Amino acid sequence: MKKLNTLLLIFTFTLAGFAQNNSVSEDSLMLRKLYEQSLLNGKSYEWLDHLSNNIGGRLSGSVNAERAVKYTKAELEKLGLDKVWLQPVMVPKWTRGVQEYAYVQVAEGTTTPVNITALGGSVATPETGLRAEVVEVHGLEELASLGKEKLAGKIVFYNRPMQPDVIHTFEAYGGCVDQRYSGAAEAAKYGAAGVIVRSMSHKIDKYPHTGSMSYGELPDEKRIPAAAISTQDADYLSSMLKLNKDLSFYYKMNCKNYPDVESYNVIGEITGSENPEEIIVVGGHLDSWDLGDGSHDDGAGVVQSMEVLRLFKESGITPKKTIRVVLFMNEENGLRGGKKYAEVATAKNENHVFALESDSGGFTPRGFSFDASPQQFQKVQSWEPLFKPYLIHYFELGGSGADIGPLKGGNTVLAGLRPDSQRYFDYHHAATDTFEAVNKRELELGAATMASLVYLVDKYGFDSIQNQPDILK
Amino acid sequence: MKKLNTLLLIFTFTLAGFAQNNSVSEDSLMLRKLYEQSLLNGKSYEWLDHLSNNIGGRLSGSVNAERAVKYTKAELEKLGLDKVWLQPVMVPKWTRGVQEYAYVQVAEGTTTPVNITALGGSVATPETGLRAEVVEVHGLEELASLGKEKLAGKIVFYNRPMQPDVIHTFEAYGGCVDQRYSGAAEAAKYGAAGVIVRSMSHKIDKYPHTGSMSYGELPDEKRIPAAAISTQDADYLSSMLKLNKDLSFYYKMNCKNYPDVESYNVIGEITGSENPEEIIVVGGHLDSWDLGDGSHDDGAGVVQSMEVLRLFKESGITPKKTIRVVLFMNEENGLRGGKKYAEVATAKNENHVFALESDSGGFTPRGFSFDASPQQFQKVQSWEPLFKPYLIHYFELGGSGADIGPLKGGNTVLAGLRPDSQRYFDYHHAATDTFEAVNKRELELGAATMASLVYLVDKYGFDSIQNQPDILK
Repeated sequence: MKKLNTLLLIFTFTLAGFAQNNSVSEDSLMLRKLYEQSLLNGKSYEWLDHLSNNIGGRLSGSVNAERAVKYTKAELEKLGLDKVWLQPVMVPKWTRGVQEYAYVQVAEGTTTPVNITALGGSVATPETGLRAEVVEVHGLEELASLGKEKLAGKIVFYNRPMQPDVIHTFEAYGGCVDQRYSGAAEAAKYGAAGVIVRSMSHKIDKYPHTGSMSYGELPDEKRIPAAAISTQDADYLSSMLKLNKDLSFYYKMNCKNYPDVESYNVIGEITGSENPEEIIVVGGHLDSWDLGDGSHDDGAGVVQSMEVLRLFKESGITPKKTIRVVLFMNEENGLRGGKKYAEVATAKNENHVFALESDSGGFTPRGFSFDASPQQFQKVQSWEPLFKPYLIHYFELGGSGADIGPLKGGNTVLAGLRPDSQRYFDYHHAATDTFEAVNKRELELGAATMASLVYLVDKYGFDSIQNQPDILK
Repeated sequence: MKKLNTLLLIFTFTLAGFAQNNSVSEDSLMLRKLYEQSLLNGKSYEWLDHLSNNIGGRLSGSVNAERAVKYTKAELEKLGLDKVWLQPVMVPKWTRGVQEYAYVQVAEGTTTPVNITALGGSVATPETGLRAEVVEVHGLEELASLGKEKLAGKIVFYNRPMQPDVIHTFEAYGGCVDQRYSGAAEAAKYGAAGVIVRSMSHKIDKYPHTGSMSYGELPDEKRIPAAAISTQDADYLSSMLKLNKDLSFYYKMNCKNYPDVESYNVIGEITGSENPEEIIVVGGHLDSWDLGDGSHDDGAGVVQSMEVLRLFKESGITPKKTIRVVLFMNEENGLRGGKKYAEVATAKNENHVFALESDSGGFTPRGFSFDASPQQFQKVQSWEPLFKPYLIHYFELGGSGADIGPLKGGNTVLAGLRPDSQRYFDYHHAATDTFEAVNKRELELGAATMASLVYLVDKYGFDSIQNQPDILK
């Protein structure tokens, strides 16, 4: 009897092992299929070409943003999804106007033009421009230490650069973006006439990088114009200030804020075959800044997210859960799309088990960052070996994406695709963020990597450590 | 007594642990220092700027190659190394000539120009050019199956593309480079008049990619002209052949082979303070193809290798072993520099414990490939955690680099830097391989990564698993 039991045990283990290996092998094959589909017959690059070259920059409230809504909705409809719809959302409308212009005057009669661009949301300068002396600071604390006496009537020049020795470039960005976001509001408190901010870029070049800023609670009449200056011109201005601290800076911008207008999140889904009430979101943001065509930020994320659903269809995957692509509107200057999506999801009592955002550029994917519990993350880690053939190695706890942030809560796992980020800020929010800066295979590898993760989450979920290919535990 | 023994044991363990932790922490700090030096005060990008923009393409035997020898020797001399010298080596000399030109004639009186470039080492076409019908094949086997009857007097068009679904791009390259290297020699056997080869590139564009080829033992009079055609034009030609298989192709090239000329490997070293007879080589190749300025292939490897020694000096590292930078001549079309270096090393009975080459482009580094014994590789793997903060994760057994290949044998460990390779073949051997295609921080990260590995090899060696920071085992 004991012998029979032993034999039975061996038999059972063998069967279990067989099933497990089969499952692993099935998953390996499915990932291979997703990568092949994306690299051999992908649509992401073609979509990005249209979005970037036929449409262009897609600032919230602009005609281009609406064209992008129509285009992506129509393309999603072609994929044979179960549902495609628009979710209305009110968004800020701000226009850059024309002919931004600036110069440095070091001595009477001698002016040197410099490259600036209005920060998103800034008020205009007076119609004849603004001219004043410049006070260079390296942060908000230094500003506060100078006080009203030294700042009143001056143009504050924030010149703290991104730290080149920080390996994670988003961390370096986070380390100086307060100058751009809050610089004008803070300087206005001390009676400054305007602010110019060193562009958030590692590259020393002539392109100014725009981005969001806020006046906080500052009343309209106290708002001062805020511009980004290129890194090359920031270095020039700083060196000129050392020669002549009384030099004057002139700039002219006619940007303008309007009342909110209606726009849309674009949404499509493959409804789950077994657990349709369990929703997986994959998305990027459809709006972009207006200087380039927003190919990396975030055209790449948009087309990669659309591609995830197309890859599911093409690869014959029938997901158990509902897989929903959301192209969020207004990430750049308001996050209204992300907030609206979460608001509606809460109102409808929807169950989001997972949300994945791609909003870090279309570069070679390296992995994901997860906002998850230790148990959920443990499950994710068990899938790592499946990604090794694709050089996907980065699985870390951390942030996810701005648009999906409002979904945080309960058991929802959030994640962000993490591509190589070393050259991202060379393009970010600048005229250089164009289609040519995106490499086809890098974009396609990102889409396949996202699809692979979504496939595994759909199949195994995060809840139980048992329900997964055991050999990978 | 037992108690005392236990206490002694605990004390000993604590001391050992303390020493180990100290060593780990010392190594972590040194790696941090190397990365900081490279990213904050690096010289690699400035050197590459000169090599690419002031000198340019550096084909073996050309004036530019000699200028590069002089420049890099002079720069190494400025670093305060213990020795800098030139190692003479005879190299092939081949010139492209001027005005390469080609067109497709689909019908009488209708010609479409296409972009071609001579493969390195090819003979010229007749002075008035070569015109013939085209036979498209996808490999050497298909060629053989067609035989003399179908190939005599024709231009053979090799059109097997790099496979986009192969994740490791060097593997995809390896999968079709036989067409370029042996295509002419094989086609000549069947009486073909010439060959054109689809460029080895993932990107569909108008730039032809040159590269080395060989006629093998073919006598001079049987040698036929060989050119690369751009991927875009290869697709065009292939589609036209489907419409009219009798179309004719015309090309004209006046490239030329000369007798060998003398050139040099450029070598510099920091002589080891404890074991000077143990040599560590770090290198890249100084020659390049002539269409672009060879910034990725292999200007990047040259300046990164020079930077390794500069980083050692700047960081105050006194290496135990001899650290030698070797800038090899003639990797592209002969490997004479690599062979000569190994030949001299053997003749002098030098003991090379390690050689590291960077010859895969100046992109974001991801790790290294090692040609080592399992025991040696185990030691390498123990260092992996030290690299994690720098996103260096790829440590695999495999190939190393062409120039250091001839050093293989005995206990010498060989390794190659492995940067992200997804866009490498867009530039490789084409006019697009220019300084603008290299990103400053990506280049600098590569140099620091190489310096870090060399630092660890110098300190711990490969021989004993004991001699290293134990916590990392």
